[in-house]
Amino acid sequence: MSDFPASEFEARVSYIQSRMHEAGISALLLMNEPEIRYYTGFRTQFWQSPTRPWFLIIPGSGKPIAVIPEIGAALMSRTWIDDIRTWPSPRPDDDGISLLKSALEGYLSVGLLKGPETHLHMPLAGFETLDAQLRHTEFVDATELVRAQRMVKSDAEIAITTEICNIASRSFANAPRLFKAGQPQSESFRAFKIELLSQGADDVPYLVGGAGQGGYQDIISPPAETPLEHGDILMLDTGATLNGYFCDFDRNFAIGSPDNSARHAYATLYRATEAALAAARPGVSCQQLFETMQAVIGGSDESIGRYGHGLGIQLTEPPSLAAFDQTILKEGMIMTIEPGIAIPGGRFLVTEENIVIRDGAPQLLTARAPEDLPVF
Amino acid sequence: MSDFPASEFEARVSYIQSRMHEAGISALLLMNEPEIRYYTGFRTQFWQSPTRPWFLIIPGSGKPIAVIPEIGAALMSRTWIDDIRTWPSPRPDDDGISLLKSALEGYLSVGLLKGPETHLHMPLAGFETLDAQLRHTEFVDATELVRAQRMVKSDAEIAITTEICNIASRSFANAPRLFKAGQPQSESFRAFKIELLSQGADDVPYLVGGAGQGGYQDIISPPAETPLEHGDILMLDTGATLNGYFCDFDRNFAIGSPDNSARHAYATLYRATEAALAAARPGVSCQQLFETMQAVIGGSDESIGRYGHGLGIQLTEPPSLAAFDQTILKEGMIMTIEPGIAIPGGRFLVTEENIVIRDGAPQLLTARAPEDLPVF
Repeated sequence: MSDFPASEFEARVSYIQSRMHEAGISALLLMNEPEIRYYTGFRTQFWQSPTRPWFLIIPGSGKPIAVIPEIGAALMSRTWIDDIRTWPSPRPDDDGISLLKSALEGYLSVGLLKGPETHLHMPLAGFETLDAQLRHTEFVDATELVRAQRMVKSDAEIAITTEICNIASRSFANAPRLFKAGQPQSESFRAFKIELLSQGADDVPYLVGGAGQGGYQDIISPPAETPLEHGDILMLDTGATLNGYFCDFDRNFAIGSPDNSARHAYATLYRATEAALAAARPGVSCQQLFETMQAVIGGSDESIGRYGHGLGIQLTEPPSLAAFDQTILKEGMIMTIEPGIAIPGGRFLVTEENIVIRDGAPQLLTARAPEDLPVF
Repeated sequence: MSDFPASEFEARVSYIQSRMHEAGISALLLMNEPEIRYYTGFRTQFWQSPTRPWFLIIPGSGKPIAVIPEIGAALMSRTWIDDIRTWPSPRPDDDGISLLKSALEGYLSVGLLKGPETHLHMPLAGFETLDAQLRHTEFVDATELVRAQRMVKSDAEIAITTEICNIASRSFANAPRLFKAGQPQSESFRAFKIELLSQGADDVPYLVGGAGQGGYQDIISPPAETPLEHGDILMLDTGATLNGYFCDFDRNFAIGSPDNSARHAYATLYRATEAALAAARPGVSCQQLFETMQAVIGGSDESIGRYGHGLGIQLTEPPSLAAFDQTILKEGMIMTIEPGIAIPGGRFLVTEENIVIRDGAPQLLTARAPEDLPVF
């Protein structure tokens, strides 16, 4: 029933407990899907239902304690977790708070994810009640601890990510059969989702993109009903999943002969990616890798903001390939290489590959996009 | 580019502004996808990326103000919103906080969703900074105001939900072609997702279920690799989406002749649903409707907890058909009718239909499940 052997979860918990000890944190209180899954193996689409809060406590030593709605007990009992405390949720006047209080009482310093790229996945009023009731407990920020651990992937995590990248690469290889002039973009997207599932993806939680004459206007839109036209550049950017791990990359296709500015922009992005692949090594900082790409692309476009990010349980994870991020690349990090470029007239092109940082050259998880913009 | 005419959003904002005025709330600060979409029409799968926070401020009068990452500006500018304030996110040391501070300064009472079924969709540290900087502003709980509005759907919302329910009903009607003995459950799920997309669903964010001899053991598991066997009851519960609105219902199928306890349990759930359909009228409380079903089912199983819920932008929305919920049903509410029953041996059956509360008998949005458990 688990995506990983119990030894993997034991190692993850043991590692964070060492970091907690160093930081003087006596317990961690986690409540987001990625962290609960990372430390327990509990995987369900039931998180689509926002009604019920879920909690995991990692004490300074010993196994984590699940404090969860009764509806999750059967599934949680099939993970390596033994101590499962439940309540009949939803129970608006006490949705897990009294259970949390008794589980956390006595811990002086409880770590919580409060920092960048996190959110408090419980009602704020419930948290305020808990905070007021635990008079001797201080909630401290443990974002850096968990973030630093999750950024470096295990071999087993890399194996799953490799497989979903292979699935998406095979799907993109069938693009000539799937996309054509005259097809509404929404139909291109639908055909591509079905292709991803047929190739073995569990789900396609993320498929965005755009199409437009010589480039697209934004990169987060749902597909339009507009038919693809000669001169359009079609881009699909997919986060498909396998066992709850994401790939995240895109491919660009020209419908008929692309204009020179699009062709030139694509070639620039290809060279920027090559430069990043040549530079991505353990010990290099995210900022340096960003600047390596920026040197090829030239100028600066704040609306793109960064040229890649971590990838794993979430579609986008720390670190960021951006001027502000001094994180040092380490072996085992899975990163996207995602340079973007503005084209005159308010258009963009973006390309994306997924890599693993290795001792030496990075390992490409994606079948490298062709050097020249493919034309249908 | 919008799923609704501007007049619909104007009406939504105008209505909540009246409620805010009555409650003495001078502005609302919203940060979750459902509410931002509800009041603006901003729809994107980019919420899959947890990196960046997004905000919407609804002042006491006038149009909402979007305070969002620059990457969303182009898409937001195609909604009815004019005042769009952006920053180059991610920017860990100030991810929108200074923009929020200047937008909210001067408001004495800012409503926030703090109550049941909500969460704080921004870093807690960022919220604490904002709260400390806005010395003259009090953050108050506006959960009830927004919840009461969103529970009652407009005709346009009902039309979209009707369509996605039709799509899923057509897909379930093809079950005899899709599911068969010997098929791994994971393949049944994959085939059904592809069917839903082929029938016109935009996405299938939720597809859970189970299969087991005479019933299933839990209802939130990912599909197993186990092949379907004679005597299994297969249940698929889907939340497919169209234009960002969910259906949420399940269907049960017996692989070969079901045992008597499964047949009996299914018949009981069918009768409980008939009783609910006969009782669901404006003016009836959620608790009463729950008790109507409970009277047919008998006993009480806390692990199921409730027998239905609201449905719309989210897979599960308030209210709950549960003993604790005194919400009065109103015309225009979309509800699931979802009775469950325990079968000796730790198994369950659950059935689910989607309805609209109307002035008179409710309108079934789903093609009613057959009275007898279908057998393949």
